[in-house]
Amino acid sequence: MARINVINFRSRVVGVFKKDQIVIDGLQYCNWDRELFEDLLSGGLTAIHATVSYWENAEETNKRLDYWDNLFYEFNDLILPVLTAEDIILAKTGNKAGIMLGFQNCSPIENDVFMVEHFFKRGVRFMQLTYNNQTVLGAGCFEDNDSGVSRFGQEVIAEMNRLGMVVDLSHAGEKTMIDAIKYSKKPVAISHANPKFFHNAKRNISDSVLYALKDNEGLIGLSLYPFHLKDHSNCNIADFCDMILKLKEQIGIDKIGIGSDLCRKWSNDVLVWMRNGKWTKKEDFGESKNNNPDWPTLPSWFQKASDLSNIAEKLLEKNMSSEDTNKIMGENWFNFIKRIF
Amino acid sequence: MARINVINFRSRVVGVFKKDQIVIDGLQYCNWDRELFEDLLSGGLTAIHATVSYWENAEETNKRLDYWDNLFYEFNDLILPVLTAEDIILAKTGNKAGIMLGFQNCSPIENDVFMVEHFFKRGVRFMQLTYNNQTVLGAGCFEDNDSGVSRFGQEVIAEMNRLGMVVDLSHAGEKTMIDAIKYSKKPVAISHANPKFFHNAKRNISDSVLYALKDNEGLIGLSLYPFHLKDHSNCNIADFCDMILKLKEQIGIDKIGIGSDLCRKWSNDVLVWMRNGKWTKKEDFGESKNNNPDWPTLPSWFQKASDLSNIAEKLLEKNMSSEDTNKIMGENWFNFIKRIF
Repeated sequence: MARINVINFRSRVVGVFKKDQIVIDGLQYCNWDRELFEDLLSGGLTAIHATVSYWENAEETNKRLDYWDNLFYEFNDLILPVLTAEDIILAKTGNKAGIMLGFQNCSPIENDVFMVEHFFKRGVRFMQLTYNNQTVLGAGCFEDNDSGVSRFGQEVIAEMNRLGMVVDLSHAGEKTMIDAIKYSKKPVAISHANPKFFHNAKRNISDSVLYALKDNEGLIGLSLYPFHLKDHSNCNIADFCDMILKLKEQIGIDKIGIGSDLCRKWSNDVLVWMRNGKWTKKEDFGESKNNNPDWPTLPSWFQKASDLSNIAEKLLEKNMSSEDTNKIMGENWFNFIKRIF
Repeated sequence: MARINVINFRSRVVGVFKKDQIVIDGLQYCNWDRELFEDLLSGGLTAIHATVSYWENAEETNKRLDYWDNLFYEFNDLILPVLTAEDIILAKTGNKAGIMLGFQNCSPIENDVFMVEHFFKRGVRFMQLTYNNQTVLGAGCFEDNDSGVSRFGQEVIAEMNRLGMVVDLSHAGEKTMIDAIKYSKKPVAISHANPKFFHNAKRNISDSVLYALKDNEGLIGLSLYPFHLKDHSNCNIADFCDMILKLKEQIGIDKIGIGSDLCRKWSNDVLVWMRNGKWTKKEDFGESKNNNPDWPTLPSWFQKASDLSNIAEKLLEKNMSSEDTNKIMGENWFNFIKRIF
C-alpha cells in the first residue's frame, strides 16, 4: 500500500470534530446495517473496534468473519477493514469508517495457540483473555476467585505480542489484569471500562490496575454502557467528563480513550445470550442488579455513535484543551494502534 | 435389558482371579487392536475406562466417538460398551470386556453445558474437569495458581451429577479437587493417580484431598504410570502393595481401586501431543524431569493389562484378605459405578 499523507481529508467537519481529526471508538457491538454505518460517518468517526465473537468456538467464529467479509463487500462505500494504522488514514482520506475486528473472549482459539495467527490473518486485531467467566487463559471479573494468567495464557500473550494483536483486558479479573500486564511485552488495552472510583462495578477498574496500566503505557477506553456509569442510565455527562479529568490526573492524558460499548439494534435475546452463552441452564443477569433481562436505557447524551461529539463538547466546555480533547476522542487510540498492530 | 443374574459366568479362571470375580481398570489409553482387547480378556479384566479425548473440541470428539462406535462394531466378539452397571455383568456373563468411555479434559464440551448431555447420550461416562492446564471449569495440577472450580464448573458438575457422569479429578489442581468434592452431590473419582506419600509428584494426591475423598465416599484408582510411582520405572511391586496397605489404613478399603493409566502401542509423537496439545509452540515434557520425549519404560511387573493379576498375587502374599484384594481389583469400582451411572 502506498504511504498516505495526512492531508487532503475529504471528510466533513462534524460538530466539534475538525476536518483532520481522528475519532476512534474502542468498542461497539451492533447489528450492523447501512443506517448504523452512516451514523459512524455522519458522527465523524474515523474508526471503531467492532466485536466479532463472545462465546463462539473456532468454526462459529470463522462464520462470523465470513459475515464481516460480506459486510466489507456490501458496504464498501461506507467502511473498510483496518489491518494497520495506515488503514485508519486510508479510512479518513476515503471518507469511510475503518473497522478493527476483535473478540470479547478467547473461545475462538479453543486450546490452540496456532489459532491466534489464523485469526490475525483473517483480520482480527483485538482479543480479550476472558469474558466474565474463567477461561483457559485467565479469570473473568465475575469469578469469585482469580488465579491470574494460566500457562496457556502466557503462551497466547507472547503470540499476540509477536503478531501485533491487542491484549484486551476488559471483562478480566483483577489478578488476571495485573498478570497480563506483567507478561505482555507490548502495551495492553482495556478497551471498554471505567475506573472503579467513578462507579464501583465488577467490570470497572481498580486504582492498582490503572497504575499498572500507566506504567505499561497502555490505554483504557472509557465506557458508556449504563452499568459501568455512575447513576447508570441517568448518568450526567458533566460527571462523566469530571471522571475523565480526574483520570487524566491519575494516569496521564495519553492513556485515555473512548470504548463506548455501544450495542444497537439487538433484541433482548441477544443480551441474554451475551450474559449466558450456554454456560448455564439457569438465567444469569450479568450486571443487572434487579434481574432485568432487557437492554439498559442509554444516557440521553449518548444514544448513538454520532453522539460522541457531545462528550468532546462538554470536555471543551470544562476547559480541557482541544489538544487533550482530541487525544481522548481518538488520537490516543491511533497512537496505541501504531505501536501494536 | 433383562436383569442379569450373577451366576453362570463363562469366563475362564485367570491367574488369581476367580471365575466370578469382577476386575476393573479405571483408566487405559491404548491404540486399540485385537491383540490389546484379547489381552484384557486373557487377563480376566471385566471392564476398563478408556480415554476418548485429551485436547479435542466437540467436533473432533464426535469423530473419536464415531471411531469407538466402529470399534464396538468391529470387535463385538471381544468388547461391549458399558452404559450402566448392569452392562458390566453383561460383559462378565458374555465373556467380553466392558468399555466405559471418558474424557481426560473438558475441551469436548467447549463453553456449552448442554454438551454434557450430548456426550452422555453418546455413551461417555467419565469426564475430568482439567488436564494439567487451567480450563473453563478449574485448574490443572501443573498450574502455579489454582482458583478452584469456576462458575461454569459448578454448572457442569451439577449436570454431570444429574445425568450420572463420573466427575473425575485426575490431573486437577489441589483447590479444584477440594472444590469439586464440595460441589458434587455424588461421590467423585480420581481415576488414575497415587498418594503423594508414596511419590511426591504434581499428579499425585495430597493427604488432605485423600481425606476429603474419604468423606465424599469417592474412589481413587491407583496408577502404574512410571512418573506416578516411587522410583519410577524401577518401582518395586512390594513397595506399590505396601502403599495400598497404608492407604487402606488412611481412607478405608472401599475407596481404593486400580486406574493403571496403561498406554500401549502409541508412537512417541502421541506422548508429545498428550503433553502439548497445541497450547504451546515450545515443547513441554510434562512429568519427565530429564526432558525425555519418549514413553517411560513400564515396571517389569506391569507391562500389559493382563499383568494386573501380579498385583493381586502380591497383595495376597502380603496377607491382604482375598475379600479386600477383590475389592481393590474391581469390586470397589463396580460398586462406585452402580452409585453413579
